Amino acid sequence: MRKILVALGGGPTAVINQSLVGVVLKARLLGTVYGARFGIRGILNEEFLDLSDVPTQELEFVAVTPGSALGSTRDKPDIKYCMEIFKVLQAHQIEQFFYIGGNDSADTLHIVSEEARRVGYSLRCMHVPKTVDNDLMCNDHTPGYPSAARFVVQAFAGTNLDNAALPGIYLNVVMGRNAGFLTAASALARKYPGDGPHLIYLPERTFVLERFLEEVRRTYEHYGRCMVALSEGIHDASGAPIASQLMKNADRDGHGNVQLSGSGALADLLCDEIKNKLKVKRVRGDTLGYLQRSFPGCVSDFDQRVAREVGEKAVRFAMSAQDGSVAIQRTSDYVVGYELVPLKAVAGKTRVMEDKFIADSGTDVTDAFRAYLYPLLGSGIPEIHRLSSNPVEKILKKS
Amino acid sequence: MRKILVALGGGPTAVINQSLVGVVLKARLLGTVYGARFGIRGILNEEFLDLSDVPTQELEFVAVTPGSALGSTRDKPDIKYCMEIFKVLQAHQIEQFFYIGGNDSADTLHIVSEEARRVGYSLRCMHVPKTVDNDLMCNDHTPGYPSAARFVVQAFAGTNLDNAALPGIYLNVVMGRNAGFLTAASALARKYPGDGPHLIYLPERTFVLERFLEEVRRTYEHYGRCMVALSEGIHDASGAPIASQLMKNADRDGHGNVQLSGSGALADLLCDEIKNKLKVKRVRGDTLGYLQRSFPGCVSDFDQRVAREVGEKAVRFAMSAQDGSVAIQRTSDYVVGYELVPLKAVAGKTRVMEDKFIADSGTDVTDAFRAYLYPLLGSGIPEIHRLSSNPVEKILKKS
Repeated sequence: MRKILVALGGGPTAVINQSLVGVVLKARLLGTVYGARFGIRGILNEEFLDLSDVPTQELEFVAVTPGSALGSTRDKPDIKYCMEIFKVLQAHQIEQFFYIGGNDSADTLHIVSEEARRVGYSLRCMHVPKTVDNDLMCNDHTPGYPSAARFVVQAFAGTNLDNAALPGIYLNVVMGRNAGFLTAASALARKYPGDGPHLIYLPERTFVLERFLEEVRRTYEHYGRCMVALSEGIHDASGAPIASQLMKNADRDGHGNVQLSGSGALADLLCDEIKNKLKVKRVRGDTLGYLQRSFPGCVSDFDQRVAREVGEKAVRFAMSAQDGSVAIQRTSDYVVGYELVPLKAVAGKTRVMEDKFIADSGTDVTDAFRAYLYPLLGSGIPEIHRLSSNPVEKILKKS
Repeated sequence: MRKILVALGGGPTAVINQSLVGVVLKARLLGTVYGARFGIRGILNEEFLDLSDVPTQELEFVAVTPGSALGSTRDKPDIKYCMEIFKVLQAHQIEQFFYIGGNDSADTLHIVSEEARRVGYSLRCMHVPKTVDNDLMCNDHTPGYPSAARFVVQAFAGTNLDNAALPGIYLNVVMGRNAGFLTAASALARKYPGDGPHLIYLPERTFVLERFLEEVRRTYEHYGRCMVALSEGIHDASGAPIASQLMKNADRDGHGNVQLSGSGALADLLCDEIKNKLKVKRVRGDTLGYLQRSFPGCVSDFDQRVAREVGEKAVRFAMSAQDGSVAIQRTSDYVVGYELVPLKAVAGKTRVMEDKFIADSGTDVTDAFRAYLYPLLGSGIPEIHRLSSNPVEKILKKS
């Protein structure tokens, strides 16, 4: 029997288990399927689960559960790490390795694939895309992004109502180190004229504090309130993230990335600036944090379907003669197709928002972006309604 | 035609519009119904909407929309403010005033009611309960709490999966100034053995930093990770909130409350303490923020029904000869009844978690609390599933 290994890398999403189940259900028709616990670290430690006989119904339940059912890792292997991996793979006679993850995971897999070829170890390496940041090259979008975007849309739709009821300035910081796709999704929360977010700050544009304060001031004057969506990755002209400048205990992962999530510092600092400079009393800042990639019950059904399919397609592509990454192409607004691209085409590279998606103001998105995102969000987004205005004539007319 | 006024006070919830619609649909059978924009501030400014002829279908859409459809306020009236209110009510010949809100709003209404009696102005004052904090006296629970609790449950269920996939220490700060009901709800996110939150810190118990660090350390050692739920209102032995001690620009509302929400400071400070003292690398802190009271699509259907009914009952009780507050009684686990209690029984008073709901450890809830909360959460909470473990025998056995 052929031995097939599957693992998950990087940050979990609401649909990464769909891709896992897609791989497992297809691959176990062809051989024995092992799952490595905690990504490549689990390979190193020989922590494998045999998924060949897990009941299909159980897998289907896991598929609709957020998080990475096998665990994940942020380890990045060097050559020594790779050699240890090969020893384990060889001992267990693994022939195919499916690694579900983002551009860092694709980079990991690319290193493993190159090293395997160099040392003459026969291993089929397939990368299955996922990332809430939507920052993979060669892909229309990446599984995980649509559900996270839907969470962002619902979060801004709700907090917009809250801010409209108790007017003030409200900031909310959204994930996305280099790419603003998730922050930009907040624009689709707007329904009625005057709805927030009124200003959107993306890492694709330079953040200038004085300009930010002036834009917030103008918006607050105009609407009597101001809702702001901010990417955690906003940076100054030198490219230095505003967030990491402010963090004392900056924490880096194995890929050298500074920790941007899991802290409210960026929102708090900007709230302080606004309070001090604009003299506005009600200023509040939230940070969406880990909820945006893990909240159960806020999932795009479109995202679920595509996440399942990339897993299935990866098994299909593994029958061909080359390693690679499954890439998603949009063939029309609601239909996607799949192709295999070389690992190095996505490994370690970052897609950012195309200029056509960003408004000239630099603080909003375009119709092209709305048209791009809308079909990804899936069905059944809760509707928001206002009371129609029927003002009573004033009698005392004091104000 | 009788003139009836309705307004919303304090923080919005996911179901406060249900109570508004409950009042409007019943009251407009009896007379003309005005809605004041932005609570009592709208009365002062004569900002009324005539809700008598708003289509029922539109009201039903508004009922399922989070936020306060008429706007809200945190103003607290003094005698001068009350006199201005009476002038407006008199000019518009308002006979009944329904104020939907928490204990601060009940306090406002109590002042208005007492002053009206003192100056001989005939006004029926009815308080309709709401608050996500669940801190009203005389009530089994308050509308808004069940839906916010459901959000907390889903948020912790999701972030528990995230933390299990990438193990570390994770804190999440939950709303609740004096009462820990909302923070305690996080306990109902647990399904499998080892699920978080592993530690729950409530404002009903004194927070001691050294003890906290020791409890986190022990839990981290035991599970290899640690999920913590913290109330924003945790305080030291002197009663001083840990959060407000740390905030430079402490912001107070008209009721003298320090701003605790809309900042990530508490989570960030405690993360820094853990990093510095326990030398753990992966430490993350989130703050649920305004999402927990406004997120669309995460609502308890039980909460919606009760919120509608308290509005309807208030109109019914207004036919009796006294001012008061509608109070919710649990008659069995899934059935509630309503009674009218004096305004002063709830005005400005705070219910906290009963001792029977808090475990002896001080960092968990009891079965009695789980039994209390479970029926409030409503139907259709997303299920969470794990992969059953089927470990493969190690060959190299290095670890």
